[in-house]
Amino acid sequence: MHLSIEIICVGTELLIGKTLNTNANWLAKRITNLGAKVERITVIGDDVGEISSVMKNAMQRNNDFIITLGGLGPTFDDKTLEGIAKALNLKLEINDEALKMIKKRYRSYMKEGQMKTFELTQPRVKMARLPEAAEPLPNPVGTAPAVLTNCDGKTVISLPGVPSEMKAISETTVLPILKKITGGLAFSEKSIVMTGVVESEMAPIIDEVMHNYPRVYIKSHPKGAERIPKIELHLSTTAEDPKIAKERVSRALRQLSERIQKKGGKIRHARRKI
Amino acid sequence: MHLSIEIICVGTELLIGKTLNTNANWLAKRITNLGAKVERITVIGDDVGEISSVMKNAMQRNNDFIITLGGLGPTFDDKTLEGIAKALNLKLEINDEALKMIKKRYRSYMKEGQMKTFELTQPRVKMARLPEAAEPLPNPVGTAPAVLTNCDGKTVISLPGVPSEMKAISETTVLPILKKITGGLAFSEKSIVMTGVVESEMAPIIDEVMHNYPRVYIKSHPKGAERIPKIELHLSTTAEDPKIAKERVSRALRQLSERIQKKGGKIRHARRKI
Repeated sequence: MHLSIEIICVGTELLIGKTLNTNANWLAKRITNLGAKVERITVIGDDVGEISSVMKNAMQRNNDFIITLGGLGPTFDDKTLEGIAKALNLKLEINDEALKMIKKRYRSYMKEGQMKTFELTQPRVKMARLPEAAEPLPNPVGTAPAVLTNCDGKTVISLPGVPSEMKAISETTVLPILKKITGGLAFSEKSIVMTGVVESEMAPIIDEVMHNYPRVYIKSHPKGAERIPKIELHLSTTAEDPKIAKERVSRALRQLSERIQKKGGKIRHARRKI
Repeated sequence: MHLSIEIICVGTELLIGKTLNTNANWLAKRITNLGAKVERITVIGDDVGEISSVMKNAMQRNNDFIITLGGLGPTFDDKTLEGIAKALNLKLEINDEALKMIKKRYRSYMKEGQMKTFELTQPRVKMARLPEAAEPLPNPVGTAPAVLTNCDGKTVISLPGVPSEMKAISETTVLPILKKITGGLAFSEKSIVMTGVVESEMAPIIDEVMHNYPRVYIKSHPKGAERIPKIELHLSTTAEDPKIAKERVSRALRQLSERIQKKGGKIRHARRKI
């Protein structure tokens, strides 16, 4: 099944340029490889109004899953669930299962001697305050559980922003859920780097090949320094069958390569996989 | 003057996880350092409908500048100006000044022997088709000019997505424009890395210091591996005077450090500048 996904990244550190958004990149790549489509990535600061406003707009668009990254921890600046609850008109309430997960985590910290005492303080309880009817997803490497909220025919999944936690929960829970829905859909891509033809002369060639292979998306990325025409050409497609996807990209790439060579261009790195 | 900015990144390569969004990170950091505020970063694919929809929404929000990155080149997938024109209800028309810039660039390619002949082909003319009343900004290192469009009290600046071109145009034209408006506003930030106190125990300490220094924003970033509490604390502020900004952050940091040490925490890298 075709699957449309939006990613919402919450974190002022992303807006001030302190943190490079490697989370969105990692997740987008993994989602794409399952044959699903990331339609949009939005980055906002740690602000309930902003989170709620972006969520509300995303709920109105044509997507199946909304995945939020960041803002699930115990500190005051972790506001994602509050923003989601506001947008979806849900109450935040203590989720017993989430609270169990959190207690279990802190008990293991104590066992290993990292903490001497454990109190269920307000900041710790905060991580168990989920939108009503939401479901906590286990966090194998950190304290804050991830959260799955079904609402109005969409699924909202909230993951922590710490990369190791985001990746662990994605691998164990989120990506398997998506894979089950997309079924056998497969994404295939290939790239070549071409020299000797400037981008404006490549335009009609790309047009022609895309016309002949309408399901293959070709994008040109100028890579050269100032005065050396060097362009990466990236071909990709999604198909029911991985073999069909791969063959389709290969055939389009063959035609593209022929046309480039006719124009006097040279292909520097043939069929490099990215 | 306070200045609110939104960044819109156009490029399917960002949504499939092929390209890490270093452009948005670079630009956000530079804008922040001028004392202006990036409110939101949105990433969409090479699709006129999507570009136009994101632009329309951004025009309705409370910001002064909208900066788009990507989609200005000569190939079919460069659709940013078409999307902007659609959103702002402006016609696209050949801009004579832009056409001159493009011709000049190709003539220099010919002079240097990279091209034998030069024709003003459709893809080349395309780069000079700007929204009516828009102004081309010179691109010192590439063919496609950047574009400045004033509309409804906001300024829309469109930059190419090739990093070297985006950076060159920002340095020579865009950042100076923003700096002129923000005037002497200065951004100051400091970070420490702290061990020995878990994030949930840090929460009330951060709350207290932020209460005492309401203009300093403190954010905690858990950095530890699974079972080692290690948190980066990032403090930042914006002020009329760089000295005031720096002192304000220093004072808040001093208080924060004292509170952490009282809790038994250790500060590993004091006052590391990022």
